[in-house]
Amino acid sequence: MTRHSLSLLSAATLAMLAATAHADEGMWMPKQLPQIAKSLKAGGLALAPTKLNDLTAFPMGAVVSLGGCTASFVSPQGLAVTNHHCAYGSIQYNSKPERDLLKNGFYAQTLADELPAAPGSRMLVTVDMRDVTAEVLNAQTQALTGKARTDAIEAAEKRLVSACEADTGHRCSVPAFFGGLQYQLIKQLEIRDVRLVHAPATGVGLFGGDADNWMWPRHTGDYSFYRAYVGPDGKPAEFSKDNKPYAPKHHLKVASPTASPLNEGDFVMVAGYPGRTNRHRLPTEVDFAFGWQQPAQVKAMGESIDLIKAETAGRREGEIRMATRRQGLENYFKNLQGQQQSYDGSDILARKQAGFDQLKAWVNSSPQRQARYGADLAAAERLIAERQATARAEHLMSFMVPALLNSARQLYQIAQERAKPDAERKSGYQERDLPRLKAGQQSLERRYDEPTDKRLAAHFLAQYLAQPADSLNAAWLQALGLKAGQDEAAVRAQLDKLYAASQLSDTAARMAWLDKDAAAFQASSDAFIRAAVALYADDERREDRDKELAGKLQKAYAGVQQAMIDYHASRGEAVYPDANSTLRISYGKVQGRDVGRDGESWKAFTTLRGIQAKHKGPDEAGGEFNAPAEQLTAIKARNFGAYYVKDLDSVPVNFLSTLDTTGGNSGSPVLNKKAELVGLLFDGTLDAVISDWDFNPKMVRSICVDSRYMLWQMSTVDKTTRLLDEMGVK
Amino acid sequence: MTRHSLSLLSAATLAMLAATAHADEGMWMPKQLPQIAKSLKAGGLALAPTKLNDLTAFPMGAVVSLGGCTASFVSPQGLAVTNHHCAYGSIQYNSKPERDLLKNGFYAQTLADELPAAPGSRMLVTVDMRDVTAEVLNAQTQALTGKARTDAIEAAEKRLVSACEADTGHRCSVPAFFGGLQYQLIKQLEIRDVRLVHAPATGVGLFGGDADNWMWPRHTGDYSFYRAYVGPDGKPAEFSKDNKPYAPKHHLKVASPTASPLNEGDFVMVAGYPGRTNRHRLPTEVDFAFGWQQPAQVKAMGESIDLIKAETAGRREGEIRMATRRQGLENYFKNLQGQQQSYDGSDILARKQAGFDQLKAWVNSSPQRQARYGADLAAAERLIAERQATARAEHLMSFMVPALLNSARQLYQIAQERAKPDAERKSGYQERDLPRLKAGQQSLERRYDEPTDKRLAAHFLAQYLAQPADSLNAAWLQALGLKAGQDEAAVRAQLDKLYAASQLSDTAARMAWLDKDAAAFQASSDAFIRAAVALYADDERREDRDKELAGKLQKAYAGVQQAMIDYHASRGEAVYPDANSTLRISYGKVQGRDVGRDGESWKAFTTLRGIQAKHKGPDEAGGEFNAPAEQLTAIKARNFGAYYVKDLDSVPVNFLSTLDTTGGNSGSPVLNKKAELVGLLFDGTLDAVISDWDFNPKMVRSICVDSRYMLWQMSTVDKTTRLLDEMGVK
Repeated sequence: MTRHSLSLLSAATLAMLAATAHADEGMWMPKQLPQIAKSLKAGGLALAPTKLNDLTAFPMGAVVSLGGCTASFVSPQGLAVTNHHCAYGSIQYNSKPERDLLKNGFYAQTLADELPAAPGSRMLVTVDMRDVTAEVLNAQTQALTGKARTDAIEAAEKRLVSACEADTGHRCSVPAFFGGLQYQLIKQLEIRDVRLVHAPATGVGLFGGDADNWMWPRHTGDYSFYRAYVGPDGKPAEFSKDNKPYAPKHHLKVASPTASPLNEGDFVMVAGYPGRTNRHRLPTEVDFAFGWQQPAQVKAMGESIDLIKAETAGRREGEIRMATRRQGLENYFKNLQGQQQSYDGSDILARKQAGFDQLKAWVNSSPQRQARYGADLAAAERLIAERQATARAEHLMSFMVPALLNSARQLYQIAQERAKPDAERKSGYQERDLPRLKAGQQSLERRYDEPTDKRLAAHFLAQYLAQPADSLNAAWLQALGLKAGQDEAAVRAQLDKLYAASQLSDTAARMAWLDKDAAAFQASSDAFIRAAVALYADDERREDRDKELAGKLQKAYAGVQQAMIDYHASRGEAVYPDANSTLRISYGKVQGRDVGRDGESWKAFTTLRGIQAKHKGPDEAGGEFNAPAEQLTAIKARNFGAYYVKDLDSVPVNFLSTLDTTGGNSGSPVLNKKAELVGLLFDGTLDAVISDWDFNPKMVRSICVDSRYMLWQMSTVDKTTRLLDEMGVK
Repeated sequence: MTRHSLSLLSAATLAMLAATAHADEGMWMPKQLPQIAKSLKAGGLALAPTKLNDLTAFPMGAVVSLGGCTASFVSPQGLAVTNHHCAYGSIQYNSKPERDLLKNGFYAQTLADELPAAPGSRMLVTVDMRDVTAEVLNAQTQALTGKARTDAIEAAEKRLVSACEADTGHRCSVPAFFGGLQYQLIKQLEIRDVRLVHAPATGVGLFGGDADNWMWPRHTGDYSFYRAYVGPDGKPAEFSKDNKPYAPKHHLKVASPTASPLNEGDFVMVAGYPGRTNRHRLPTEVDFAFGWQQPAQVKAMGESIDLIKAETAGRREGEIRMATRRQGLENYFKNLQGQQQSYDGSDILARKQAGFDQLKAWVNSSPQRQARYGADLAAAERLIAERQATARAEHLMSFMVPALLNSARQLYQIAQERAKPDAERKSGYQERDLPRLKAGQQSLERRYDEPTDKRLAAHFLAQYLAQPADSLNAAWLQALGLKAGQDEAAVRAQLDKLYAASQLSDTAARMAWLDKDAAAFQASSDAFIRAAVALYADDERREDRDKELAGKLQKAYAGVQQAMIDYHASRGEAVYPDANSTLRISYGKVQGRDVGRDGESWKAFTTLRGIQAKHKGPDEAGGEFNAPAEQLTAIKARNFGAYYVKDLDSVPVNFLSTLDTTGGNSGSPVLNKKAELVGLLFDGTLDAVISDWDFNPKMVRSICVDSRYMLWQMSTVDKTTRLLDEMGVK
């Protein structure tokens, strides 16, 4: 799993600087391909590298974003493959105790059996990217600072998006690159009817569970299939029985196990949507992240996981409802712990500081450079310190809010914004955003578990209230009827009253608020609606405060990054922007690692033997190593078929590669030199997740499902003949 | 631990056939050294190989048997190093809850602080080995069969031993080689005052505990120190305050970490006392062992371990008393499971059968050979089947007998035998054997835990009684007052009566029986003494039955092995006898392994980093990964001194070698090409313990403690300056 939990990465969104690339380092923008064409050819790429720059051609046209994950078309009928953990929310959404798709897997025997994915599921095909920096940061905007600057940037972005989305069926965005130095307008075809086609049983798709997550050796069949559907006119449409499979312009072909067998040392590349890296954060940001923020998150997440486990134990209904949240938490929790372990005792901060000192010295050694960058360099560190103070004070707020209160706040915000002309509404609350917001409100139906929600809220609210009284947010205390210093029992008693006095857990009641105006909210006696109304002024105040700071910081940070780029350029070094959830290409090779556990090294491939060795059955180790009986029988019978690899004396299951990836890359197609699908990227290793901050080529390996394992399981064990035929697998 | 539990290997004692040696395969008798001299020179041995054939010269004169383990002298004052798990019984014997040497380790600051080892501890220095086959199997004996033949062989052995032991201070024995085809008279200097000098804390000496036992990567500091003491006249003597350290003729020098650093690929050899291998058992024996006997043992041992854990939980006194027994059980349990896992689904039996069929075909293809070997070949399989039937029927007897009843049976046997002239007494009950028997009776003082003993007896007696009534031993039921079909509660009630009516748990009372005659036993009202007397006739009957079979089997088995040797000779293949607890030499090299866990391979060395990574503290994982705080501090401070190895960027802890070893080799000195001590052999790997039956050079690795780790821990952490000085370590 592991590489996708972007929803949890929200704490920090600013600022990525460019890096000098090591061997195989780099998440390259398609437009940067000329810079790496030589390396791609040297690595063995059989296509013209420039071909990768054409987003509408093969193979890039086959790669799609799921928003937080990546997928790729593998048939002319819109069949798309991604990771099991990327489809997890949809599998969970369709699961009930009496029809447990999570546990048993799912295979639609016919098109008609394919199930709607979780509400809000989208497939986004990037069709265009163009630089719009001059439009976003025009002279007028450049003259502004603070909130005015933020508002002007947002307004420009909204104008660009609105014009772009005039082309029906498309979704557009204007992400910042190099931390606000550059902006690209990205246009994506937005497929809104996504259906679940096939997911293997948990014992395959999540084999190893949390124990093996971020680990090698690995034996996870982390694949699942979606299908894109469009209206009868071939255009994106909401779910309808009359919809038909989408016909993508391009799709990937799975590599033949006999004609194109993948071996250690082979060239591979990956196209996908990496979420965020922080390789060139300022030293003060590194220090804050590892010295305070991430440890605080680890603590709170660990507590959350324990509480979820305790509150859902023995209630399969509760377990299913909390499954996605818990899996996301466990995944990120383990990731942060791994980062912290690599960081503690390392020289990372010292190196970052030395690099920044060099940059400053370079700036200070010339009056021209001093004049150009000096003020921004000084301002950036001061403004970052301000942002960090707020983050500290409000850290617990992302853990302590009842889900239905958050729901109510969003509903009230929608009502407030809908009263304005569309172009004046806040980003995220425009007409174009309503379907997504509505889907989120709908999803709660299957993801809300009151006992767990209340326990979490009580736990973290009590923690919050235990802080010095003068540091607490008075509006919050008043809105919820709480007092500084109250213990968990007292908080719990108050929450009992609030929960009992709200109807929002009823989906129809909740959804009805989508159509009401602000006055209706203000007149309501629903406890959470009342609290949302009471909090509104403070929510606005804090948002304005953040926008004021963001405007100042955007200017300073862009200046720092320009200095960094210019400094590298002065040394003849190329740079690439940090990841920001936009389409990127990485390349490398299939390769084991000399450094494993002490006394061991890592091979490039695992095999079916490891599944046998790890299998423990449903009752041991939390059932995390519970391979299906049919699979074990097939392994024992050496029923390997065309997927047998002689050197391994088995079928390959997962493999390691030097590909540079991060969260968001999950589900990305791994391609061989002929751009055939040889695997799916799904994980990194715990001892190298620090690569999001600091890249070490000796340590960094991405973990991929071998497509031969996927096909073997589908053909030999799960007998998904319809899909194999559709993919043209003989 | 792992490679020493010979006391548990009693079930089978016959029959080892010769083998064609693979690369690095072979536990060679010193007299066979001319056969492997070329390989030793090629491997890099700097000594003349023939030197290894002189048991009284360096280095063989420094290697000693502990009876089930091996040790070696490392100073001119009789200081000997062996494995922590080999000294475990002595550490346990000297431990009490208020002075927990097992947990905290032990270091004698002065000679006067050195503690007596467990009663019966011996150091045996082999001074001579000579072939006495012609004397044991003279013409008169060769004409006999059945019990008469067994008695004649025993009588000849006793004569030889008696004459040999006329040289005071020596212990002699006449073990069979090639399963009774050859006999050697072995003469050993017997040091009877052995003292415990130093043992590291459990967190070093047993780091990893049962979890890591038989595993790689490994980080166990499996070393401890004994010292040999002799009387003021320099001759072996019982413990006395007036004794002085023994001055061995030869001792080993620990390799200098700087002048002779050990690296992967380096030549190593090991001299020690491997207990038993079964590489050329007959197919029917292989089938029985893996098809019935070992699975039955695994089941009973697993139950025993669980019961011991349950009965001693929370009682440190009980835990200490049962520690040696439990550790031995866990060790062998894991070993047998490992063997079984390698065996199941393998082609081992088919290969054994094919080899045996070839041998038969070779015999049958010539009338002369048919005449010479035919009858023995036919008889051997039939007689083995007979022995197997008895083993099945009496399997539970080795688990169900109360310890004090076994004690009583031995005491009564001693009384019976002592009434005869010494030469006519049974083997094991002669005058020479009394000190050992007495020590065993004494040891119970610290190893008997009544609640656990009773629980085990009740559990297995109830299992025994649940078998068909006509298969049960009537004498046993009568002697213990039990009835077929009784459940555990009923058995327990009867045991309560027996235990309550016996004084044998009192050491003084028990030891007093050593001096009483048979009439005194027959007149006793002690419950276990009465039971022993009641069982005597049946014990004798079963012993005679076994001797009858043994006599027939010795003849047939020797014939089979002669055929095997001759068959190999006809193909120009050399052979070496299976291990039989006599001094052997193995050679090989330091080498990792390509096959590790699936997706991993094994490096040759582990380092201190792995201790840090595995450390869990006293409360997790049963405290099995609980490195001492001082050690962790030293590792963190990179306080590596002269033991630092640049390529590893740390101090080596354990290493893998291709040495061919088995249980009994534990504690054996591992020597480099200059015969300097570079490590101590202490384990094999679970996935290759099947090598006792079937040698696979790709898989077999022996695990050794690196002497650099031992010296680092002793100098940096435990500050055992006196010993380091004594060993000449700078």
